[in-house]
Amino acid sequence: MAIVAVGSLAFDSINTVKGKRERMLGGSLTHFANAAYFLSKPHLIGIVGGDFSSENWDFIRSKAGSIEGIDILKEEKSFFWEGVYSEDFEKRETITTELNAFAKFDPVVPFSYRKRPFILFLANIDPEIQKKVVLQSPESTLKILDTMNYWISSSYEKLSAVLNVVDGIIVNEEEAFLLTGEKNIVMAAEKIFRPHFKMVILKKGANGVMVFGKDFIVSLPSFPLRDITDPTGAGDSFAGAFISYLDRLGTLNYSQAVVKNAAAYATVVASFAVEGYGVDGLKGISKKDINKRLDEFRKITACK
Amino acid sequence: MAIVAVGSLAFDSINTVKGKRERMLGGSLTHFANAAYFLSKPHLIGIVGGDFSSENWDFIRSKAGSIEGIDILKEEKSFFWEGVYSEDFEKRETITTELNAFAKFDPVVPFSYRKRPFILFLANIDPEIQKKVVLQSPESTLKILDTMNYWISSSYEKLSAVLNVVDGIIVNEEEAFLLTGEKNIVMAAEKIFRPHFKMVILKKGANGVMVFGKDFIVSLPSFPLRDITDPTGAGDSFAGAFISYLDRLGTLNYSQAVVKNAAAYATVVASFAVEGYGVDGLKGISKKDINKRLDEFRKITACK
Repeated sequence: MAIVAVGSLAFDSINTVKGKRERMLGGSLTHFANAAYFLSKPHLIGIVGGDFSSENWDFIRSKAGSIEGIDILKEEKSFFWEGVYSEDFEKRETITTELNAFAKFDPVVPFSYRKRPFILFLANIDPEIQKKVVLQSPESTLKILDTMNYWISSSYEKLSAVLNVVDGIIVNEEEAFLLTGEKNIVMAAEKIFRPHFKMVILKKGANGVMVFGKDFIVSLPSFPLRDITDPTGAGDSFAGAFISYLDRLGTLNYSQAVVKNAAAYATVVASFAVEGYGVDGLKGISKKDINKRLDEFRKITACK
Repeated sequence: MAIVAVGSLAFDSINTVKGKRERMLGGSLTHFANAAYFLSKPHLIGIVGGDFSSENWDFIRSKAGSIEGIDILKEEKSFFWEGVYSEDFEKRETITTELNAFAKFDPVVPFSYRKRPFILFLANIDPEIQKKVVLQSPESTLKILDTMNYWISSSYEKLSAVLNVVDGIIVNEEEAFLLTGEKNIVMAAEKIFRPHFKMVILKKGANGVMVFGKDFIVSLPSFPLRDITDPTGAGDSFAGAFISYLDRLGTLNYSQAVVKNAAAYATVVASFAVEGYGVDGLKGISKKDINKRLDEFRKITACK
């Protein structure tokens, strides 16, 4: 199989209790590919400006199955985001969002991406663009959508329309509450779950993740970390690792056991991701490191 | 082995989004015994007033190994607490606390309780009283202490003194942060963990529980509940079930596997407890019901 992912390629300036970093390579697509890489290099769809350096290209190329779907607008700058995290990393405030080239994003799924079945990941972007990508992806066997508060509040109708054509959603707990008006996470998941869905993935940050299937629930804690450096992209890293696990397994049967193992694997990959700034958390990490921490995670949480 | 527990027997008036209940039987000792009951009926130490009805006595007697250590102050009323929960059950506000008989609590560990080794549970009461009970319990093989924000803020020195003579502590996440000034739960646990400790148990409510041993961590999510009725006593129910599991197992080796299974069992018992008002959540629940939900919990969380 394969993975096709659409999202943002960006520069991030972030400020945490650990320090400040300026204009690091970031964006949902970057973090997704950086985490998927270990099991399945995704085919990417995105847009960058003329300021995307050869070093940036080298990095993205090394993580991607293909970059044919990445457009360049030479006269524009790339997406830029600046944010500050609270001391406990639980809250973040956006200082600046400059869409730049991203404002003109009109993605096309390259023909070369469509030669075999694939899992489609729609990172957090305008639901109207997400829908365009879905309509160009009849070969996709599983379509998972990410979204955020902004789209839920401002474009609920469009979001609802794209939910009709995907197989599942990945959002965080607060977004699930906002989307449903519920205060209980199980109730929220049930309300989000549409009859045609295969899964609803609810991320709870340091409190772990829950995945709801048609007739099962999976719930896992996070991997206990003494030291977090930068949670930016943790959710996209989780998504990348989760989907790469499903893709590598090659099954179309998303059973409780399959989803549980995918979520455990993704929890561990995301735990490395937040230990460094930007994409550096996974720099130098090997499959062996991931498997070692996965064994530890099983000991910490898997009761027999 | 056996369990000896000291704490409050009380009447609670509570108000949740589900409705209001007046003067239900409550208190830390009541909830502890109600949950421990399935595996090991604890020997209780507490104090009540003349308003403790024969029905109340019948209930407590049915859950206890012995009630010899419960004092009665006929001319006083029993401890009374009134509280209101937020819609999502995450916050609670105390409306009234009347200590009544509890203000004169000066517990004595009955000689009959000390005929064999026991696990000692010190529910959330004045650390000075907790210390008195510890000093009367040389036969105890494991001493676990609960405490709360009030004692951490007002009696830190006394609390610190009793921590020198117990083997572990059970508190919630916010209390751990208050106790240590840390914002990261692993760092907080390490700071709380004294060299002579056997475990530090950090409860996270709907987000599960973590147990820290000398050289291991256990982390479990909560059991997913669609419908919560009354979280009062959830922590004491967890403690009762957790300690009853350790007692029933009869081991003095609190390994990662032992603690993980105890925590999973206690998570499930506590999940029943919050589904009803006061002690009613566990009313009519059988060991078979607990084991069935425990199997379900393993499927939800135990990755292989």
